[in-house]
Amino acid sequence: METQLPLFYGLSFLTVVLAFAFAAYLYLWVKKQKTSNAKIEEVSQLIKEGANTFMRREYKVLAKFAAVAAVLILVFLPSPIWNGNFVDNISMAVAYIAGTVLSAIAGKIGILVATLSNGRTAESAQKGLKPAFLIGFRGGAVMGLLVVGCSLLGVAAVLMITGNSSILLGFSFGASSLALFAKAGGGIFTKTADVSADLTGKVELGIPEDDPRNPAVIADNVGDNVGDVAGMGADLFDSNVAAMASALVIAQSLSGGAYNNISMVFCYAILGLFASIIGIATARVGKNGNPTHALNSSTYVTTAIFLVLTAIATAVFEGFSWRIWAASAVGLLVGVIIGITTDYFTDDTKPIVRKVAHASGSGPAFTILSGMSYGFISALPAMVGIAVSALVAYQICAPMGEGYAIFGISMAAVGMLSIVGMIISNDAYGPIVDNARGLAEMGGLGEETIRTADELDSAGNTVKAVTKGFSIGAAGLTVISLLGAFMSEANAALAAAGRELITGFDIMSPMVFFGVLIGAAIPAVFSAMLILGVDKNAQRMVQEIHRQFNTIKGLREGVEGVKPEYGKCIGIATSGALRELIPAGLMSIAATLVVGFIGGPLAIGGFLLGNIVSGLLIALFMSNSGGLWDNSKKYIESGEEGGKGSEAHKAAVIGDTVGDPFKDTAGPSINTQITVVSLVASLLSTLFVMFSIFH
Amino acid sequence: METQLPLFYGLSFLTVVLAFAFAAYLYLWVKKQKTSNAKIEEVSQLIKEGANTFMRREYKVLAKFAAVAAVLILVFLPSPIWNGNFVDNISMAVAYIAGTVLSAIAGKIGILVATLSNGRTAESAQKGLKPAFLIGFRGGAVMGLLVVGCSLLGVAAVLMITGNSSILLGFSFGASSLALFAKAGGGIFTKTADVSADLTGKVELGIPEDDPRNPAVIADNVGDNVGDVAGMGADLFDSNVAAMASALVIAQSLSGGAYNNISMVFCYAILGLFASIIGIATARVGKNGNPTHALNSSTYVTTAIFLVLTAIATAVFEGFSWRIWAASAVGLLVGVIIGITTDYFTDDTKPIVRKVAHASGSGPAFTILSGMSYGFISALPAMVGIAVSALVAYQICAPMGEGYAIFGISMAAVGMLSIVGMIISNDAYGPIVDNARGLAEMGGLGEETIRTADELDSAGNTVKAVTKGFSIGAAGLTVISLLGAFMSEANAALAAAGRELITGFDIMSPMVFFGVLIGAAIPAVFSAMLILGVDKNAQRMVQEIHRQFNTIKGLREGVEGVKPEYGKCIGIATSGALRELIPAGLMSIAATLVVGFIGGPLAIGGFLLGNIVSGLLIALFMSNSGGLWDNSKKYIESGEEGGKGSEAHKAAVIGDTVGDPFKDTAGPSINTQITVVSLVASLLSTLFVMFSIFH
Repeated sequence: METQLPLFYGLSFLTVVLAFAFAAYLYLWVKKQKTSNAKIEEVSQLIKEGANTFMRREYKVLAKFAAVAAVLILVFLPSPIWNGNFVDNISMAVAYIAGTVLSAIAGKIGILVATLSNGRTAESAQKGLKPAFLIGFRGGAVMGLLVVGCSLLGVAAVLMITGNSSILLGFSFGASSLALFAKAGGGIFTKTADVSADLTGKVELGIPEDDPRNPAVIADNVGDNVGDVAGMGADLFDSNVAAMASALVIAQSLSGGAYNNISMVFCYAILGLFASIIGIATARVGKNGNPTHALNSSTYVTTAIFLVLTAIATAVFEGFSWRIWAASAVGLLVGVIIGITTDYFTDDTKPIVRKVAHASGSGPAFTILSGMSYGFISALPAMVGIAVSALVAYQICAPMGEGYAIFGISMAAVGMLSIVGMIISNDAYGPIVDNARGLAEMGGLGEETIRTADELDSAGNTVKAVTKGFSIGAAGLTVISLLGAFMSEANAALAAAGRELITGFDIMSPMVFFGVLIGAAIPAVFSAMLILGVDKNAQRMVQEIHRQFNTIKGLREGVEGVKPEYGKCIGIATSGALRELIPAGLMSIAATLVVGFIGGPLAIGGFLLGNIVSGLLIALFMSNSGGLWDNSKKYIESGEEGGKGSEAHKAAVIGDTVGDPFKDTAGPSINTQITVVSLVASLLSTLFVMFSIFH
Repeated sequence: METQLPLFYGLSFLTVVLAFAFAAYLYLWVKKQKTSNAKIEEVSQLIKEGANTFMRREYKVLAKFAAVAAVLILVFLPSPIWNGNFVDNISMAVAYIAGTVLSAIAGKIGILVATLSNGRTAESAQKGLKPAFLIGFRGGAVMGLLVVGCSLLGVAAVLMITGNSSILLGFSFGASSLALFAKAGGGIFTKTADVSADLTGKVELGIPEDDPRNPAVIADNVGDNVGDVAGMGADLFDSNVAAMASALVIAQSLSGGAYNNISMVFCYAILGLFASIIGIATARVGKNGNPTHALNSSTYVTTAIFLVLTAIATAVFEGFSWRIWAASAVGLLVGVIIGITTDYFTDDTKPIVRKVAHASGSGPAFTILSGMSYGFISALPAMVGIAVSALVAYQICAPMGEGYAIFGISMAAVGMLSIVGMIISNDAYGPIVDNARGLAEMGGLGEETIRTADELDSAGNTVKAVTKGFSIGAAGLTVISLLGAFMSEANAALAAAGRELITGFDIMSPMVFFGVLIGAAIPAVFSAMLILGVDKNAQRMVQEIHRQFNTIKGLREGVEGVKPEYGKCIGIATSGALRELIPAGLMSIAATLVVGFIGGPLAIGGFLLGNIVSGLLIALFMSNSGGLWDNSKKYIESGEEGGKGSEAHKAAVIGDTVGDPFKDTAGPSINTQITVVSLVASLLSTLFVMFSIFH
């Protein structure tokens, strides 16, 4: 064992305590902010109840799934229990459950604080941008700190107790499988509500967004919380754990050399969390009062602090390599660059959004065609960025010895995700201020306050693009290193079976090629299933909204005291999401099993590659075109190209409706799908070696 | 040399003569059909002139491109001329020019006969389905016979004269590079006109398709010819040549063994052409009068004849292997299966089209979301089919010796394309009857005749889906074998340079992975550029149409004698297409050069894989979702879901407009893009080995 490792375990737990303490402080700070508006209080309560009901029902479904999975793991993983390795199987199953539970807790607490912050943000928006920004941001930061704290806690505890990094893959799979379904379920819920509310409200009736007459309006606000807060939290928890786990699996396989690689992984994770704490503590809207600027500059501050601290650590500690530092720095910088290029395609001060807005003047078909085209083009810089960072990290670390090249790539992913605490804070800020805007509208806080809330909201949208670039990039690098982890796991199993080892996955091998083609189709089918889920559900909800407008007297006219049946819409979104959240994820896992049990490790290697590549492409395409359409619509609403109510606006609303499930349901779920499939492959490598039809 | 080879050269030329003679007979048969309607004659003439003008201007641009390419080939390929291999360089340049010229001739004659057949088909539709079908089909068959005849002629001549199969890659590159630009140019032209005509005519004014008042109507009909006839002919000429060339390159590398592989490739090509001639000669609308049935059953007849004839040949000739026969049979059968699954997603008697039509009732966003989702899902069976056929062909032929596995895959592609003569006939039938429908409308031939023409047209649309599945599948298998061809070319260059040979393309190698990621992004960017070309152009044309309706008195009302300025619209489509046709293709070629000169052969291997996989995925997605939207619209127009003029219909028209450039511009061009990039890689392998920055 590395001599410094106990120190870093200790420091890990200490930093986690610090992060939790800081999160508790922020939570209490948000909680003590005054509330006074009874209407806001009431709606806020409705949102909270809706979100909690959905989460309770969702977790009930997921608990059953997790229980089945845990039993299967107990019996089969890492190798069939009849091979006699009880301890490993039990550890793996327990680690798996721990992964799911920590993920669920992070999501649950995120919802708690988000539903606490939204009303308070709305009310303080009456006093101006500065105080409202702080409440929204700090509410989001609670989630950020918790997610990163939980992942560091879990990873350190599992490795310290078992001493076996392979068990970490079980923990990571727990986090990922929950994230896969939570993201799918939350994503379907939120977009069902959002799409239905927009289509009936804005398009058919011409009433404003968040108008309390619209029966879907509460469901829409609930969706922001369960989809964007809880789902996104689970997603980044998963990415962060997967990045650390794959780095640690490789680090352990390298142990015994001159470098203290395991210590280094923990040290970087600790410093990343530490840098995020500083970034969060210092975030404020400056004198120019620009919230986008505030969010971005604290991201850059966190990045700089991380790079300096890790450089100091590399100089101070024994067995830390500058090459590894450079690899993680490359990862982090490329993450920033991907964020900036994403921003170019989705920011309404840049030409692309304006071109799509202009094309909308010729009708919705042009909105769709131009938005999709730019979405496809936007994938190029990010793909090149990931390709270059993997290549550079590999080349920097290859001279350190065999296996270090892949370790370098995994550390580039760790580097990219090091500031994830900051990223989640920015990301969770979005739905909180989005809710706050709705509450300001429903609470009748007046034009001025709504405008302030709008400004906060728009900053959330812009920053989202940057953070999505980060998380897709990091997922790309993580799964490359998981491919390495899969190969070493498969070779261990092959060696145990006395068979020839794999030296690589040659695309000229027909098995590998077979895997690549099928793997590439999976993200397409996966995202299609999620989108069809939203599509079907939203059609049902639109019908329910029409029914309410037609049968509830005075609702359409807004007669005092007449209320829509909000609960019905929440119910439709909930039951639809619960029905649709399992199939897509299960299909991806089943496809992995089919390919693995037919073609063995070589086919799976190809399958993972195909899955990663087409997954990244489709995820970038969907996230960016969705963001592009959203901002084109907002750009037109700001009075350009004919403004609200024009033909261009109608076309842009259709574009935005298409983009909603792209960017908030399918696109961001693909990350998790890729990670889950990679983990399943690694975990089942022994079984694939033992039982595949072809070898 | 194989002893039977002279015989097969002789038989090849004889079969080509037979095919050309039969084509001439069909041409004269079509020509002698009577015409009497002056109005149809006049419009037909306008279409012919428009098409010829465009083709002339397009070929002028392409001639310049080809001249530059030929000079570059002369200097640099297969290796720099200062290395002293003048003869090879001259042969390669001449073969390249021959490829471009034959491709251009096939396109030109296709246009000639298509513009001859359209009016005659319209007039004979007055007499019923049977005679009209025969004229439309035989017009298309002239193109089919010419394309296959030209490809067999060219390939046999080049190989017989030079004896060097590498020179075939130059011939194939000539065919592909012309196809790439012809397809892009024709595709942009046709969809610019189609989209503009639909949006202004059907949506804004509510006048029928092909109403002579619409200024874009002639341009739309011209587009059918230059896009679907000439472009598609160039595309399949290219696929056919590429499949034969890659099989022959591998066959020559295997020569000297027990098998007469080169003879076998020619024998199969001869029998494929022969089977197509029989299929064409016997195609007739049966008693039930169903043209779809007639087209499909002659495809199946051709398939069966081919399988029987090749089985006999395999039994009769020395050195022909049953394993190879089985591989090509697998290819052909999988092609048929891909066609059938494609049909499931795009046929309006099947549930998917109806689901999308139903979703349209909730608005255009649902049309788009559901159509896209099913488009993504539809890619899965075809990807699995290609994967399985490659795997099976490989496994069947691997026992024959080293190199035979890849030869098996290339023969699966040859098998899939063996009936290409029949496929092109079916495909070219489509735009001819589409034009005929327009002419029947404009010539005032009455409701009954228009209904007959509609029925013929609808059969063309359905069959198109099947033939597209074929051509995408064949392109997939061809480029897999081109990957093999690239490896052997690169190894020859590496051996000449005294460097270590490549044993494969391991995806764990960072260079390969780097190539994969960038290669995967290229088809996305390529298709986006083409779609944006259509998008921009159509916006311009819509403005022009509005101008004509606003300034030409009596046009909107249809006052007798008032004519729109058709030429203006043709001019916009032409100049737009010429401006946009070069950049996308050039981008793909440039990306190959950049990756190759940076990362060398390993990066290129990965690049080709990424390009193939994402190219297939995007091509299938775009072709199928486009077909799906088109048929959903037609299904609604047949009176379902509210029928013409309903909200569902409006939504479906938007879906169809989005789908138009998907299925007729970008989707089918991706095939060619993949082939061109693979050929460029093979041709430049020596240069990449000599000059790449990294090795």
